Amino acid sequence: MECIAQAKCFGGTQAQYKHRSESNNCDMTFSVYLPEASQQRPVPALYWLSGLTCTDQNFVTKAGAQRYAAEHQLALVMPDTSPRGEHVADAEDSSWDLGAGAGFYVNAIQEPWREHYQMYSYIVDELPSLLSKHLPLDAQRTSISGHSMGGHGALTIALNNPEKYHSVSAFAPIAAPSQCAWGIKALQHYLGDERSQWQKYDTCELIKKQPIDKFNLFVDQGTADDFLQDQLKPSLLEQACEASGQKLTLRYQEGYDHSYYFIASFIGEHIAFHAAALKE
Amino acid sequence: MECIAQAKCFGGTQAQYKHRSESNNCDMTFSVYLPEASQQRPVPALYWLSGLTCTDQNFVTKAGAQRYAAEHQLALVMPDTSPRGEHVADAEDSSWDLGAGAGFYVNAIQEPWREHYQMYSYIVDELPSLLSKHLPLDAQRTSISGHSMGGHGALTIALNNPEKYHSVSAFAPIAAPSQCAWGIKALQHYLGDERSQWQKYDTCELIKKQPIDKFNLFVDQGTADDFLQDQLKPSLLEQACEASGQKLTLRYQEGYDHSYYFIASFIGEHIAFHAAALKE
Repeated sequence: MECIAQAKCFGGTQAQYKHRSESNNCDMTFSVYLPEASQQRPVPALYWLSGLTCTDQNFVTKAGAQRYAAEHQLALVMPDTSPRGEHVADAEDSSWDLGAGAGFYVNAIQEPWREHYQMYSYIVDELPSLLSKHLPLDAQRTSISGHSMGGHGALTIALNNPEKYHSVSAFAPIAAPSQCAWGIKALQHYLGDERSQWQKYDTCELIKKQPIDKFNLFVDQGTADDFLQDQLKPSLLEQACEASGQKLTLRYQEGYDHSYYFIASFIGEHIAFHAAALKE
Repeated sequence: MECIAQAKCFGGTQAQYKHRSESNNCDMTFSVYLPEASQQRPVPALYWLSGLTCTDQNFVTKAGAQRYAAEHQLALVMPDTSPRGEHVADAEDSSWDLGAGAGFYVNAIQEPWREHYQMYSYIVDELPSLLSKHLPLDAQRTSISGHSMGGHGALTIALNNPEKYHSVSAFAPIAAPSQCAWGIKALQHYLGDERSQWQKYDTCELIKKQPIDKFNLFVDQGTADDFLQDQLKPSLLEQACEASGQKLTLRYQEGYDHSYYFIASFIGEHIAFHAAALKE
């Protein structure tokens, strides 16, 4: 992997890297914030999965998260939201909710997506393995969070791999992709019409099947979020958790929308939540 | 003035406004962060002047300043860096250090600039007057800060109008524009070759002529800043302050560059500095 940009930030280093991804079969870019303590010892890491249309840079520049990562001396790992490149399939109509910027953190099995859209394996296996070789991260102490499509990614990835993550949280996640337009469009294209293939990538379905005792899902949702009713459906998440006994802390934040101003306002509390779990 | 965007942020409101500017003779866009307390009473305000190529949005999205403004319950006012529009003169070669995005916070007296480039009057008079009519800001409690070209703007504006500002600070300011390429280019175009016209807009010249007892200039400068030696010249600022007895706190921040990662790392301390001055 090659460092393509770096700057000192809150005593640590904000860097951007490029590497050849085997799972996605293309070059991928990601960003990492390493706190000062990483110069002396491996530090725990919080993975952040971004939402539709984002790259690795949105959270880096807009969330103000480095301040809190420095406070708790943990690293932030910020992957891109899809494979990209000249030879990588994209939505034919250039729509923003499919293809580039919209990988949905699944392993695609349908044409033309399956050659490159393997974001699930990329986040769960390839990237942690790469980072453990090159950066001072404590591979035994990892947590995960994300926003919107990335909140969906964080929840499904943690629920499918509870042994890999100490804690999981989300901002305005797409909690039931099988039951909203964004999710149905993506899952149909990437996985096909057979809905049994979708369950692994649907937070509500996973919770109904098997609650994970280890996790208390920590979720913030703005009440002024334009996508709340039609796409995000936090009430389905509440119902699924109640039905199965999954621990959930869902906070409705009055007046907040779907933007990074919402994320910036509460990312400090999420990072404190993860830092506490990563100390255990 | 018309509100064109707003979002809740750290309990307050991050908003963007558009209005017809008389001084600049064009439509201008600016951003304001109003903390929660402004719903009950007028709050003090910190003006932030951005650097070359910026709009009103860079500081809003990248500095993470709202968190600290909310902590101290003060407003942030973030103007654009120049007039803009179809009928507004711009650099013929579209260079980024003159014209749009590069108003240098002066009142231009040369053609073709003087019809629109009146950023000094805009920041000192027009914008505060407009805001006092429309927003819950305490007009008697205002401070000013900025970055690079905007650090130059903040320092020169405060030194020329000490009665209007409680305190002033800067990140990596262009401290002696008469003695660096960026400044000379801009001042020649906007003000002409007669250097006596430049003095009012040169921090070092102003300090040598008249130190301002009221101010302790608070300046942060990264040591890894690519522009330090050729454009920013903090040593000239130190010399001018020493020669005239102007109070100065200049901090060299080891390893920090010219980016918003540098600003984000120290904006909390600047806001605390201004909040303390605004309480007096």
